[in-house]
Amino acid sequence: MSKSKADRLQKLGTETAFAVSADAAAFAAEGNVVYPFHLGDMDLRTPLNVIEATHRAMLDGKTGYNPSAGIMPLREALAENIGQDRNVQYGPLNVAVQPGGKPVISKFLEIVMNPGDGVLYPNPGFPIYESQINYLGGKPRPYAYIPTGDGFDIDRDGVESQIDAGVRAIIFNNYQNPIGAESSAEEIQWLADLAIRHDLWVLSDEAYFKILYSGQGRSIVSLPGMLERTIILYTFSKTYAMTGLRLGAAVGPESVIDSMGKLNVNVESCTNHALQYGGIEALRGDQSEAREIMNTLQLRRDTLVEELRTIDGVEVFVPNSTFYLFPDVTRVYERMGATSLEDFRSRTLRETGVSFCTREHFGSPLPGEDRKFVRFAFSGISVENIKEGLARLKAFWN
Amino acid sequence: MSKSKADRLQKLGTETAFAVSADAAAFAAEGNVVYPFHLGDMDLRTPLNVIEATHRAMLDGKTGYNPSAGIMPLREALAENIGQDRNVQYGPLNVAVQPGGKPVISKFLEIVMNPGDGVLYPNPGFPIYESQINYLGGKPRPYAYIPTGDGFDIDRDGVESQIDAGVRAIIFNNYQNPIGAESSAEEIQWLADLAIRHDLWVLSDEAYFKILYSGQGRSIVSLPGMLERTIILYTFSKTYAMTGLRLGAAVGPESVIDSMGKLNVNVESCTNHALQYGGIEALRGDQSEAREIMNTLQLRRDTLVEELRTIDGVEVFVPNSTFYLFPDVTRVYERMGATSLEDFRSRTLRETGVSFCTREHFGSPLPGEDRKFVRFAFSGISVENIKEGLARLKAFWN
Repeated sequence: MSKSKADRLQKLGTETAFAVSADAAAFAAEGNVVYPFHLGDMDLRTPLNVIEATHRAMLDGKTGYNPSAGIMPLREALAENIGQDRNVQYGPLNVAVQPGGKPVISKFLEIVMNPGDGVLYPNPGFPIYESQINYLGGKPRPYAYIPTGDGFDIDRDGVESQIDAGVRAIIFNNYQNPIGAESSAEEIQWLADLAIRHDLWVLSDEAYFKILYSGQGRSIVSLPGMLERTIILYTFSKTYAMTGLRLGAAVGPESVIDSMGKLNVNVESCTNHALQYGGIEALRGDQSEAREIMNTLQLRRDTLVEELRTIDGVEVFVPNSTFYLFPDVTRVYERMGATSLEDFRSRTLRETGVSFCTREHFGSPLPGEDRKFVRFAFSGISVENIKEGLARLKAFWN
Repeated sequence: MSKSKADRLQKLGTETAFAVSADAAAFAAEGNVVYPFHLGDMDLRTPLNVIEATHRAMLDGKTGYNPSAGIMPLREALAENIGQDRNVQYGPLNVAVQPGGKPVISKFLEIVMNPGDGVLYPNPGFPIYESQINYLGGKPRPYAYIPTGDGFDIDRDGVESQIDAGVRAIIFNNYQNPIGAESSAEEIQWLADLAIRHDLWVLSDEAYFKILYSGQGRSIVSLPGMLERTIILYTFSKTYAMTGLRLGAAVGPESVIDSMGKLNVNVESCTNHALQYGGIEALRGDQSEAREIMNTLQLRRDTLVEELRTIDGVEVFVPNSTFYLFPDVTRVYERMGATSLEDFRSRTLRETGVSFCTREHFGSPLPGEDRKFVRFAFSGISVENIKEGLARLKAFWN
């Protein structure tokens, strides 16, 4: 193909973690056993009541177009559910249904960010933040998380030092992928004060808000002055094991939600009609399978942490949310004489079948970073296979 | 909300036809009967075998992520089906599954058009073409269709006169919404020659390729030299009455399809996993319900044409494709003393309950246009209601 494509594509990033999936698949195709800790996907099926509600809706003819911002009963159910959990008042006009949580990232940036504006975002963090900031002509302003021994805190100096008049928005991902960090009430208050002081828009990525093993979820939107500047990324993906069915929503001020709807008209018309009835059932129907998902994840988490801690040189804390561990493997890395995190990952896969992502799949290391981290996801692997994989890992890493 | 939004939103258009839906709904809410000829939607349910295949896939756990460009079996089925119907050779790497046909429009422009590039597109035509050309910083170059008495021809002089070095692409919508035009083999050849001569990318919007009442569908991609410069917009929406389930695809050169997949990773991750198994069933399974849909549409078309032709001053041809009629109502308009097409539409709705869109919902009238056209869709109304509505219309318009 000799015809050239548009220049903007050069600024488009991707999820480099897909290369890990491809590498693991290639290794498996050679006849090897793979222990998949690299996937952010789930091997658990969507709850049956959600599937059946979707099926009934298709049979009832909910197969035609629906409003670009979603059907009113789902917008109402989301407004009620999300508002109650966060102790704020939302109505249906604050909700724009989307085909997944991810579309909220690009649409948020399209709506609030002009080319040249700065946007703060976590690094390590979900790689699409940076990709879309760049793609849409913004200035990426990555901020770090600092290990505390039993978790991570936001690098406040790092945030403050990057704020100038051109910074327009901050992306905050409490219950954080990949590191599993949970912000304290005090940290969230600090962030809210900062957003108000500098008049920033906030994208609160709450994909893991309900993947919480104890306590009550905290959202920055609950704090005074935040309702009018915060857009919540909501998704059914994790709570209801619906990653591949694609159902989510943007929740925020009406003016922004209006624009979300208009972008929907332009880009995808509307979200799958019948599936939205599945969404209503997910929110209002029986929660026993959703609870079962959490029980399964918790057992996997505890098993994986216990096994990892038997390995000399692995430091790992028990995250209260997400389905990721982010162990510090610096001493193993040094003992192995690894030349790079990619070398470390690749050699471990080939020696043990254990497949995982590294810190570098979630952004380029920032100045001053000297520890080596990897990410273990436990959403796509059984307890039995966790034990089997970790036995092999121990033999190689110890 | 005092916080300002991004400037780019000022260039974002919409489908103004939604205002007609809202007006009709408001009129119905006052207790009036509405005869909905304004909808491009279908009141026919998705074929049962497609629904059941989707349901089975959900039960089988096809609820997790799938590749951003779609599952391989669907890409293979689409490559085979689309290639055979057009007598060209496609493989799965030429296909990127999308959540509907519409996403192909914006992604095509993102991939081939730089800001400042000109793009030719039909006017009247699907309004999202113009909206997205503007939104993404291109220069809109609308071209007209000229009435011939029994159809419409592309205004070739209008196309030629707008081509300069800055024109990069042309959007071609054979089997055209809203006018129902079908290009002759000679017209398609002329367009292909033009695209090659000026080295243009071509978006061939083939949403209605299978909504054809007689003969065999013709695609510009079949002509020599076109395979490497044409991207087909394919959708399941019309053929399988799946408008609201959102399943479609971009089909074209691998280099463009690669970029489509990368945009998918950034914007929506992937298309609904289980639904893609429904798509395979649609393509390879029993076609009896799809045939039934065409029979139903044909009966509606014939009824509506017959009734409209009994009205003095309505000129309408029988389209061989789409589910739209585009009657010339100039003499009725003049007899009524209408002050604008909007006045004509609104007064007709209020006097008769008959609701339709006008030419102006598909782009601003071009210089020299003097006839008045409206669009009647017959995809969302039964034969019985067509007759009832037309009886009222006749009484008012005659």
